[in-house]
Amino acid sequence: MAVKYTRTHEVSYYECDVNQTMTFPAMIGIAIKTSEEQSDALNRSTEFIHQFGLTWVITNYHFTIQRLPKVGEIIQITTQAMEYNKYFCYRNFWFHDKKGNELLKIESVFVLMDIQNRKMTSVPEEIIAPFESEKIKRIKRFPTIEKIEEGESLPYRVRFYDIDSNQHVNNAMYFNWMIDVLGFDFLTTHVPKEVNIRFDKEVEYGNEVMSHYEILKTDSIKSRHEIKIGDQLYCEANITWLLK
Amino acid sequence: MAVKYTRTHEVSYYECDVNQTMTFPAMIGIAIKTSEEQSDALNRSTEFIHQFGLTWVITNYHFTIQRLPKVGEIIQITTQAMEYNKYFCYRNFWFHDKKGNELLKIESVFVLMDIQNRKMTSVPEEIIAPFESEKIKRIKRFPTIEKIEEGESLPYRVRFYDIDSNQHVNNAMYFNWMIDVLGFDFLTTHVPKEVNIRFDKEVEYGNEVMSHYEILKTDSIKSRHEIKIGDQLYCEANITWLLK
Repeated sequence: MAVKYTRTHEVSYYECDVNQTMTFPAMIGIAIKTSEEQSDALNRSTEFIHQFGLTWVITNYHFTIQRLPKVGEIIQITTQAMEYNKYFCYRNFWFHDKKGNELLKIESVFVLMDIQNRKMTSVPEEIIAPFESEKIKRIKRFPTIEKIEEGESLPYRVRFYDIDSNQHVNNAMYFNWMIDVLGFDFLTTHVPKEVNIRFDKEVEYGNEVMSHYEILKTDSIKSRHEIKIGDQLYCEANITWLLK
Repeated sequence: MAVKYTRTHEVSYYECDVNQTMTFPAMIGIAIKTSEEQSDALNRSTEFIHQFGLTWVITNYHFTIQRLPKVGEIIQITTQAMEYNKYFCYRNFWFHDKKGNELLKIESVFVLMDIQNRKMTSVPEEIIAPFESEKIKRIKRFPTIEKIEEGESLPYRVRFYDIDSNQHVNNAMYFNWMIDVLGFDFLTTHVPKEVNIRFDKEVEYGNEVMSHYEILKTDSIKSRHEIKIGDQLYCEANITWLLK
């Protein structure tokens, strides 16, 4: 059984939007901080990984949301490295309220990238062992991300504060561009239920991306998203929404 | 002597930019959180102020920076409501490192605004009394903000995540637009020493602002900033910089 790690967090006003609930970038921020704390506690810090010439890259998130955390709420964030195979590490995050009710779950896929040639490398035992996650042979499949059929788009310029210490865009920022296109009226009348996002390529400082989207209202309300530069896909997502 | 309030904070990676130091929006976020906690502790919460039909609005910040807080650093943020007159309340914030060295000071001006007619109102005794700040007759002057003489500009669209629970742009966001125009090369070779900013008018969702700027390199390195929509000024600032 893999090692769990939990931290307590009070949701600040600046982590929330006009709905008084946590934004996606804020949720990802605190989730990743929790996993970094676990890695530090197990002596597998970012600096340790860098000694191998490697760095962690996140390729997928799958959110299942019961209720978004609210301003002022005390929440607990738990993380666990679940399984890994030759190339992929599967990590879960759970957000709970004070009473222990699950607010949301994030399943994620991490890979190790060679810092020099930016290529994916196999996972060294020495890096992964302390997390005590299960070694598996198969590749876990995440839900298929449906492509946009008839969409609209808005341009976004990468800002200085969008880039992190690796000079790449923090992947929480993609949510900023994807969510913003939906507009005030949609975002104040709908709540996200499920999010499935894949990061394909790294956006860099100086880029201008197009945030493409399509809203479908059939049995369920769904939005499809693609972040592109020209024809090149950088990130794609599907979000399922509920009426508030 | 007015009541002081202090909170401890660990600087997260997502509060820092590529320089590994705290961004202006993150510093303002944690400063305001500290003053809100003090207000709550003194039973002068936002909800209490709303009962009077009023809300706090910040009109000025004056930063004096020794050193910016770094990723992973444990800092202490102290706040104190210093003085007030009929219309203006003067609040200070100090950031200290673990050893008690002052990292930076923020002097600020708060006013109370009528929520209905958006007009400034005089400060009721009942709201201000618990802070035990000194009542003064005079209006404290902040340094004059020099106007742009020959500037350039970039446009910024107000995004959904830029607006706060009052449906107005959180004033930390103006820093995003002002800082971004300076560009990667400038921002990774200079550190801010002093910032003087005045908020004149509230930007709203759906607006597109122009972020005007001018960099002067004489005895000292200074940038002048104006956030405008057309000819209308919304926010202006001067920043003094040091070479890294």
